[in-house]
Amino acid sequence: MPYVNIQVTKEGGPEGTGPSAEQKAALIKGTTDLLVDVLGKSPATTFVVVEEVALENWGVGGLPVTDYRSSLTE
Amino acid sequence: MPYVNIQVTKEGGPEGTGPSAEQKAALIKGTTDLLVDVLGKSPATTFVVVEEVALENWGVGGLPVTDYRSSLTE
Amino acid sequence: MPYVNIQVTKEGGPEGTGPSAEQKAALIKGTTDLLVDVLGKSPATTFVVVEEVALENWGVGGLPVTDYRSSLTE
Amino acid sequence: MPYVNIQVTKEGGPEGTGPSAEQKAALIKGTTDLLVDVLGKSPATTFVVVEEVALENWGVGGLPVTDYRSSLTE
Amino acid sequence: MPYVNIQVTKEGGPEGTGPSAEQKAALIKGTTDLLVDVLGKSPATTFVVVEEVALENWGVGGLPVTDYRSSLTE
Amino acid sequence: MPYVNIQVTKEGGPEGTGPSAEQKAALIKGTTDLLVDVLGKSPATTFVVVEEVALENWGVGGLPVTDYRSSLTE
Repeated sequence: MPYVNIQVTKEGGPEGTGPSAEQKAALIKGTTDLLVDVLGKSPATTFVVVEEVALENWGVGGLPVTDYRSSLTE
Repeated sequence: MPYVNIQVTKEGGPEGTGPSAEQKAALIKGTTDLLVDVLGKSPATTFVVVEEVALENWGVGGLPVTDYRSSLTE
Repeated sequence: MPYVNIQVTKEGGPEGTGPSAEQKAALIKGTTDLLVDVLGKSPATTFVVVEEVALENWGVGGLPVTDYRSSLTE
Repeated sequence: MPYVNIQVTKEGGPEGTGPSAEQKAALIKGTTDLLVDVLGKSPATTFVVVEEVALENWGVGGLPVTDYRSSLTE
Repeated sequence: MPYVNIQVTKEGGPEGTGPSAEQKAALIKGTTDLLVDVLGKSPATTFVVVEEVALENWGVGGLPVTDYRSSLTE
Repeated sequence: MPYVNIQVTKEGGPEGTGPSAEQKAALIKGTTDLLVDVLGKSPATTFVVVEEVALENWGVGGLPVTDYRSSLTE
């Protein structure tokens, strides 16, 4: 009866686009298969929720992601 | 001092509309009343946050919700 | 296909005991009924997870809950 | 290796605008500095995610935030 | 820079034991590999957090999990 | 009306001890002050919840934290 929450950044521009529908379907399938294989869970009661987060709302290294990445390449 | 997070799908089309403002108000009132009744919590320190999730971002049975529902009716 | 996460404090002492099994069952039933009534969701695909949080891990007013409550009655 | 999730309301109108990019950067920096100072965590493995919640999706006192605020000033 | 939260029940008795350390390591590896394969994420900035939930704290079908499972086999 | 969830590892041994009560109080105070300073939020409606995660339940780099740290120093 697992619940999985996957948070990823929306890449590609100020608004970002996030992963495509195909990529999200692949994340859902892969995560569900993993819980079936490792813990013997039933797919019908396995929920996977993908949350897409704007780049300016995600921080790492004390900076929004975009600034953090710039700081690494300077 | 409870915090409640309610995640529901946005139904009704590719973008979906999610629950109406009236439905969200009913979820907030019902959840708060429940915590008052069962645990004696104070409404003023009971937070309820409703998160609306696009259909393609919610997976069950290893599939995005829309595909999963189609598979059940085939 | 809702997922609901309910976070409440563990009351009653340093370790606290949290809500009883009966109280948790009442929260689960009440929340599920609410989602059925308001949004027409199916109980079989409605998950409710109760998380119990130690008093010293919950802050409000800039203080751990126990200190906050003391400050209100001073 | 901390993960911090900050949920705030989107203020300022039906759709709301949420905090500005500068305010979000300040939240990210302040939270990261705090974890470095208090727990000695490394900024490079400290994630901060800001989630902005529409006013009608946030409840307190059994009411959506906007109605709750109105009720306080009546 | 993904963050993944996996919530599973603690099976096997009133207190339950949850997944073993080996099973948790397999969930961590599998989820990380998936994000690398599907989205090209870097493992070093991919966090996976496993939360183990007591059976009486997880509800489905309006009942705590143990009662729900009993109801299915009656 | 913010809600902040801080997830940190429980350091120091197989079971770990997590941050001390004083450290958690400092996280609560610092986070609340930050939200007051940056967004003008009211402390009385600012919740901060600290979650302590066992080392074997936290993954990074595709490994549980303990193994990951060992791999960095090899």
